[in-house]
Amino acid sequence: MSEKIYVGVDLGGTAIKVGICDEHGQLMHTYEGPTEVDKGVDMVIANIEKYVRHIVVESPYSWEQLAGVGAGVAGFTNVREGIIVLAPNIGFRNVAIRSILEERLGKPVKIDNDANVAALGEAWAGAGKGVDNCVCYTLGTGVGGGLILNGKIYQGFSGMAGELGHVSVVPDLEAIQCGCGKMGCVETVSSATGIIRMAKDAVERGDHTSLALVDKIAAKEVFDAAKAGDEVALRIVNRAAFYLGKSMAAVAAVINPEMFIIGGGVSKAGNILFDEVRTVFAKLTPEPLQEGVKILEATLGNNAGIVGAAGLLLRS
Amino acid sequence: MSEKIYVGVDLGGTAIKVGICDEHGQLMHTYEGPTEVDKGVDMVIANIEKYVRHIVVESPYSWEQLAGVGAGVAGFTNVREGIIVLAPNIGFRNVAIRSILEERLGKPVKIDNDANVAALGEAWAGAGKGVDNCVCYTLGTGVGGGLILNGKIYQGFSGMAGELGHVSVVPDLEAIQCGCGKMGCVETVSSATGIIRMAKDAVERGDHTSLALVDKIAAKEVFDAAKAGDEVALRIVNRAAFYLGKSMAAVAAVINPEMFIIGGGVSKAGNILFDEVRTVFAKLTPEPLQEGVKILEATLGNNAGIVGAAGLLLRS
Repeated sequence: MSEKIYVGVDLGGTAIKVGICDEHGQLMHTYEGPTEVDKGVDMVIANIEKYVRHIVVESPYSWEQLAGVGAGVAGFTNVREGIIVLAPNIGFRNVAIRSILEERLGKPVKIDNDANVAALGEAWAGAGKGVDNCVCYTLGTGVGGGLILNGKIYQGFSGMAGELGHVSVVPDLEAIQCGCGKMGCVETVSSATGIIRMAKDAVERGDHTSLALVDKIAAKEVFDAAKAGDEVALRIVNRAAFYLGKSMAAVAAVINPEMFIIGGGVSKAGNILFDEVRTVFAKLTPEPLQEGVKILEATLGNNAGIVGAAGLLLRS
Repeated sequence: MSEKIYVGVDLGGTAIKVGICDEHGQLMHTYEGPTEVDKGVDMVIANIEKYVRHIVVESPYSWEQLAGVGAGVAGFTNVREGIIVLAPNIGFRNVAIRSILEERLGKPVKIDNDANVAALGEAWAGAGKGVDNCVCYTLGTGVGGGLILNGKIYQGFSGMAGELGHVSVVPDLEAIQCGCGKMGCVETVSSATGIIRMAKDAVERGDHTSLALVDKIAAKEVFDAAKAGDEVALRIVNRAAFYLGKSMAAVAAVINPEMFIIGGGVSKAGNILFDEVRTVFAKLTPEPLQEGVKILEATLGNNAGIVGAAGLLLRS
């Protein structure tokens, strides 16, 4: 076996997940160990090195076949300089992770933030395989995004391209304030947080719904209730889908992508969400901008981060 | 003189304008002649060749210094194949203009549509000189756009990236239908057509305004009236500025550009428009996405098309 391999690192607050990909983004081995944030930055870096060495040594591949290592992290990164500017959940501030790891591993290293890395994973080897221009949404606590343009992560002027959750789409009369300080961002309705908020509001004001126990409502329960025919839950899901579809129409007019990939916990709602998103997108997007455009669910799940991190070596 | 020169062609329905640029986009000579659309496709192409040869021969540069020719045209173009798919105002349909001109001139040729070419001109040698990521609006009969990402025109999946006029920003309660068939596009309010429509509506319903003579209102008159203190005209200008600024906030969240360049007839309104656009953009865009972002008036005027066309050789 002489082909090259790429190791991706998903640097989380609890665990560091590593994986080996081939040059097509096929994930062949994974391994994970504790991050040990409490032991400080040096220990976290030592752990990254340890897990990367471990997975390669235990694999059928040689260290020489390792072409490089990519890492994704939740936080602000300076991609060009290879610095983690601020990553609160691992306690990093201005850590020149790229040069440190390059020295310790003797291999090229690239880094990026988790949203971009997950987008690259899906575009490279997931739902968007073979697609050059795609837009990825992650519907979780917030609404994250990443743009893959001409096959590569697009960073924008200050590294903040793809802040898709902060496209404002909710009309003033029904808008609420977003965490970013502005009104009507799609994140306020189409994230898990937004869906749960709408459900709690409904229960608290006494809407006739099967949803109950305000403290325990999760987005999944809202979807389940909607699928079971609960009218209130269905309206909440449709509202989340409507504003997501509306924001996608704006994105289509700006960058004319070939594909929208939707991942994250909320995407698990399946057809009840996707059917409505596709309907709204078709209704609000000028014909020529929707021709041939696909809206698909992400396929790599939690592995998108590892795969995309490995892809940084080839696609950034 | 041994430096290379680049000829740009602005292929219009009445005139073909050509210009010589240096490698920095400095426009040094211009020339124009009639398009002669009525004499057919072959004559139009012969005229392009004639004017390109003429301007180089009459210049201090030699034919050998000519590195290539770029052409911009109003219509649908297939950039990759070098084909003008449909350009009604010059009567072209599926004309393989690139290969025809390359054969006749013996030089590399590139083509693109007029909006992209004007955007490239401004980004390369106009207001955006030195800026890698910028978004250009042309506010004329419609609202056109072009994206320069990483220094190059970004085409998107089907060549329609930058359809900025069709970002929907007007709330349903006050939206009207756009030429594209959808409701509330920024083009319906922020184009010259939109401004004139609002002015005519005001006059026809008897608003107390200095504007009069419905058939003769032009956008410039609305700006002049607004500057002179006409309240109705001022509200129209503010409304055009508001929705433009609102659409720019959405664009900023998606692609995080360093600069917005606004050109076209409406941009001639000057500060009365730009001050309001900047205010609205600052109000509606999350802080980190507006940091360091500039909003400027286009500087090349009608020459943006020639300069950008010349730039296609270096920047596409």
